Amino acid sequence: MRNLRLQIEYDGTKYCGWQVQSRRRQKSIQGTLEKALRKILQEKVKLIASGRTDAGVHAQAQVANFKTRSNIGTERLQLGLNALLPDDVAITKIKEVAAGFHSRFCASSKIYRYTILNRTYPSALLKNRVYFFPFPLDLRLMQQESKALLGRHNFSAFRTTSKNEKDPVKTIKRIKIFKTGSLVHIDLEANGFLYNMVRCIAGTLLEIGRAKLPKGSLKQILLRRKRKLAGPKVPACGLYLKQVKY
Amino acid sequence: MRNLRLQIEYDGTKYCGWQVQSRRRQKSIQGTLEKALRKILQEKVKLIASGRTDAGVHAQAQVANFKTRSNIGTERLQLGLNALLPDDVAITKIKEVAAGFHSRFCASSKIYRYTILNRTYPSALLKNRVYFFPFPLDLRLMQQESKALLGRHNFSAFRTTSKNEKDPVKTIKRIKIFKTGSLVHIDLEANGFLYNMVRCIAGTLLEIGRAKLPKGSLKQILLRRKRKLAGPKVPACGLYLKQVKY
Repeated sequence: MRNLRLQIEYDGTKYCGWQVQSRRRQKSIQGTLEKALRKILQEKVKLIASGRTDAGVHAQAQVANFKTRSNIGTERLQLGLNALLPDDVAITKIKEVAAGFHSRFCASSKIYRYTILNRTYPSALLKNRVYFFPFPLDLRLMQQESKALLGRHNFSAFRTTSKNEKDPVKTIKRIKIFKTGSLVHIDLEANGFLYNMVRCIAGTLLEIGRAKLPKGSLKQILLRRKRKLAGPKVPACGLYLKQVKY
Repeated sequence: MRNLRLQIEYDGTKYCGWQVQSRRRQKSIQGTLEKALRKILQEKVKLIASGRTDAGVHAQAQVANFKTRSNIGTERLQLGLNALLPDDVAITKIKEVAAGFHSRFCASSKIYRYTILNRTYPSALLKNRVYFFPFPLDLRLMQQESKALLGRHNFSAFRTTSKNEKDPVKTIKRIKIFKTGSLVHIDLEANGFLYNMVRCIAGTLLEIGRAKLPKGSLKQILLRRKRKLAGPKVPACGLYLKQVKY
C-alpha cells in the first residue's frame, strides 16, 4: 500500500468542520475529500488529518494522509482532485511518504493564526475571512502580556469543554502578534491545542488590548485555570490552521 | 441640500452589478445601498456612481454621491449604513462635498485591477476573488506588448458590444503588470472604459503571455479594431474597480 500525504487549503465557512458528523446536515471537509478520492481511485479511503478544525474555521495548509492500492501519479491525482472538488477546497500539494507517516501522531507542532480587522468600518472583500473588531487595541500590551503563555502550562482556562479527558497541559512554543495595515494577526505555535483554545486566547488578548482586563491578568487567568475569568471565545471566521510541522 | 460622497467596497459575486436591473432577479449594489439609505435618512435618495460595474465585478473603492435634506453626521451615517448593509457591501468613507460634485462627470480617471492566480493548483481562500490561470506566463513579454495600449486610441477591438454609441476613443494613462507571489495583477488607468474593456485586454494579454499570439500582435489588434482578433473576455471574478481619481 502507498501512503499519500495531502496538503489542503479550505474556506471553512460552509462546512461543519473537518470531521464527518452524522447529526449535522452540513458537509464536512473530510467527507468532501473522501468522496472525491473514492471517485478517482475507485476505492474507499480513510483520510487521517493532523487534527480536526471546527465549523467555519479555515486552513491554509491542513495535512492529511491515506493508504491506497492505486498507482496513480501524484500530479495527476492533484489535478483530478482539484477538478472534482468544490471551489472552497483545494489540494495544494501531494507527496508519497513512508508507510509509517501518520498526519496526527507524527506532527511535532501546529501553527494557528487568528486574524482581526481592527478599524472602525468592516470589509466586504474580507467577509468570512477576518473577525471585525472596531475598538482601539494596545498592541504592545498584548505582545507583553502574551509572553505569560509561552512554555508548558495547564491551559484549562482557555478551552470551552472539559468533557473529553484530554490532557490540558500543552506547550506553546511561539507567539507572534503583529499588524499589517488594518489587520492584526495572532500566531500561536504549540505541540497541541485544546478545544477552542486559540479562540479563547485571542478573545482574552483582545480584552487586554482594549484595557478591559488589568495588566498581569493573563498570567493570573492561566494560573487559576478558570474559563470564566478569561475573555470570550471569538468567532471561527478569523481562525486559520496555518502550518503543521513534522 | 447637502451633497454626500460615499466610498464603497463590495464583493460583486452575488450581485447583478452596480445598477438596478428590472429584468434580473439578482440584487444590485445600487439598489442595496439606496434601500439602506432610505431606511436611515427616511427619504428616497438617488445614488450616482463613478460608473457601473458588471455582475460579479468587485470594487475596492467605488465612489457615489447623493443629495439629501438630512443633517445626519457623516460618522453616524457610516456606522448606521454598515450595520444595515449585508456583509458583502461596506462603506469605507463618507465626506460632505461641494454641491457641484458629481461622481461620474467629475472623475478624471479610473483604475481597474485584474488579478490572476497563476500556478498549477487553485486557491480555496481566493475563490471568487481571482481568475485561476494554470499556464506559464511570460510576464516581461506582457509588459512590453502592453505599452502599445498607452495613450489615446480607438479601443473597439476590446469591447463586447457596440450597441451603445459610446465613443470608442479612450486614453490609457498607465499600465502596470506585476507579480506578488502567485498573483499576477494588471492595473489599467484610463479616462474612461468601454463595456468589458479591461476583461478583453486582460484576456488578450494572457494569450500573449502564453505565446498564443505573436509578438507585436497587441498593436495590430488595436489598429485593426476587430473584436475577433483579440483574446477572450476573462471572467468577472478577477476584476476590481480599484480607485476613482478626481
